[in-house]
Amino acid sequence: MFNNLSIIGCGLIGSSILRAVKEKKLSKNITVFDKSKEVLSFLKQEKIEAELQNNINLAVKNSDLIIIATPLSAYKEILLSIKKDLKKDAILTDTGSAKKEVNQIIENLGLSNSWIASHPIAGTEDSGPDSGFAKLFENKWCIISPSNKAKENDIKKIKIFWESLGSKVKIMSFTEHDYILSLTSHLPHAIAYNLVKTAINNDDKFKQDVIQYSAGGLRDFTRIAASDPLMWRDIFIDNSENILKTLDKFSYNLEELKKAIREKNGNKLIKIFSGTKKVRKEIIKAGQDTEQPNFGRKNN
Amino acid sequence: MFNNLSIIGCGLIGSSILRAVKEKKLSKNITVFDKSKEVLSFLKQEKIEAELQNNINLAVKNSDLIIIATPLSAYKEILLSIKKDLKKDAILTDTGSAKKEVNQIIENLGLSNSWIASHPIAGTEDSGPDSGFAKLFENKWCIISPSNKAKENDIKKIKIFWESLGSKVKIMSFTEHDYILSLTSHLPHAIAYNLVKTAINNDDKFKQDVIQYSAGGLRDFTRIAASDPLMWRDIFIDNSENILKTLDKFSYNLEELKKAIREKNGNKLIKIFSGTKKVRKEIIKAGQDTEQPNFGRKNN
Repeated sequence: MFNNLSIIGCGLIGSSILRAVKEKKLSKNITVFDKSKEVLSFLKQEKIEAELQNNINLAVKNSDLIIIATPLSAYKEILLSIKKDLKKDAILTDTGSAKKEVNQIIENLGLSNSWIASHPIAGTEDSGPDSGFAKLFENKWCIISPSNKAKENDIKKIKIFWESLGSKVKIMSFTEHDYILSLTSHLPHAIAYNLVKTAINNDDKFKQDVIQYSAGGLRDFTRIAASDPLMWRDIFIDNSENILKTLDKFSYNLEELKKAIREKNGNKLIKIFSGTKKVRKEIIKAGQDTEQPNFGRKNN
Repeated sequence: MFNNLSIIGCGLIGSSILRAVKEKKLSKNITVFDKSKEVLSFLKQEKIEAELQNNINLAVKNSDLIIIATPLSAYKEILLSIKKDLKKDAILTDTGSAKKEVNQIIENLGLSNSWIASHPIAGTEDSGPDSGFAKLFENKWCIISPSNKAKENDIKKIKIFWESLGSKVKIMSFTEHDYILSLTSHLPHAIAYNLVKTAINNDDKFKQDVIQYSAGGLRDFTRIAASDPLMWRDIFIDNSENILKTLDKFSYNLEELKKAIREKNGNKLIKIFSGTKKVRKEIIKAGQDTEQPNFGRKNN
């Protein structure tokens, strides 16, 4: 599919792409750049056949497809560095969870290359190159948001690329992406972080009990609240406008719920809870979660 | 262990107890009462060897152990009905998620029988007798909270009963139970219900997209937000004092998080997110969740 493919940043997502591209033989050569020596030496030791580079300019020099898989805050510096090294027809993409700010950076740079932002809705609560695996993208959605200047043929290539990794591809605009993801992903993460912070208090003499009896619900939230802090800092800052709006809606609804509890308004409570029960069924029907009880957890 | 055991209310929890007691042969006779004809005819068809009763007084008449496994709001009527039918040394227990109000009901009744409240920290998002299974309590915690008047020997019996179902037993006071559970279970449920309500809005033209891309985080919360509405109405009303306090703490922390996002205060965000990352590890270490990524979900 490609002669030379470069992956910039090789954590959970970058290393999963690396493994999948190797397995599916989607590029003759693969170059991996990561600013961390530990990451590069981990990859060396894994004996994955790829060129490991600590020089970002050399890493992209002959590349037909460059995939940025770093936290969002690193993009600007990366793009400024590699701008002059890009082949004329090289395609640029990424794996980030927010799109608007990045698109602005690209526009300001005045690149002639196709920028086709990608967001694979795939991942786990783990991070780092040791947590990646080739099957991560299989049967998952990948949203792609091409810039206005992106060439039709390049968009097709990116679509086929993700499909080759096993993903289903949806094309949508930056703004739609950032709005939808603020509801499906950014809001839940903000709330999970806040919930775990509220429930687990080091000064509480019952802290150990709260951990011990967390199977009553809390443990579900700790998975998401274990996601990479640096990555999430960047997402909240990049998509702050949408996130703050949804958080305000959340607070408004929470005040209503508190009021119903305070007034012991049983009918109101049942109405709220019955509405959300239906959503689970719709999500399972859409193939977005398992119907096994407790997510099919083992030994739990 | 018992000659006659009665289960009042046979949904997910009651039917799991029924199946486990049969499997482990913990009682010579078992009587099941449920006010629903559908539940009784389901049980009849399952051919579980037990006496099915639609008369609650007959259901408890010869019983040595009575287990109430209904929503909390039904307790008062049940206890008033069966009071005069109880054998002198019959032990009373339940499976409810809140304890203080129930204890008050028991005290007001002036029962001479031992009341030893139980709370198995076990369950799934499903409800009804068809969702129960004998292994539900295996390796799970069960908290028991005996009333002041409960006989030592009866407490021992209840402890051994739950241990025979495979549970680990912890004895704690009503007030400790209600406080701890407000953090580990009631707060997470309130927040999950509120989050799903906020994210899924029937008037939003992107509603279907929000469902489609829910694997980015939202789906985790829909599991808990699919729990039985009636049961949760009762818990929120019974333990409203603790729950409202924890919800206020949650709102306070959420305002701090919003402020950090609004001010794009990266250091503050990283500090919050790093703290909650540690909690996941503690919960896994305490044996309260799987360490497999994504809860070990299959095909997802």
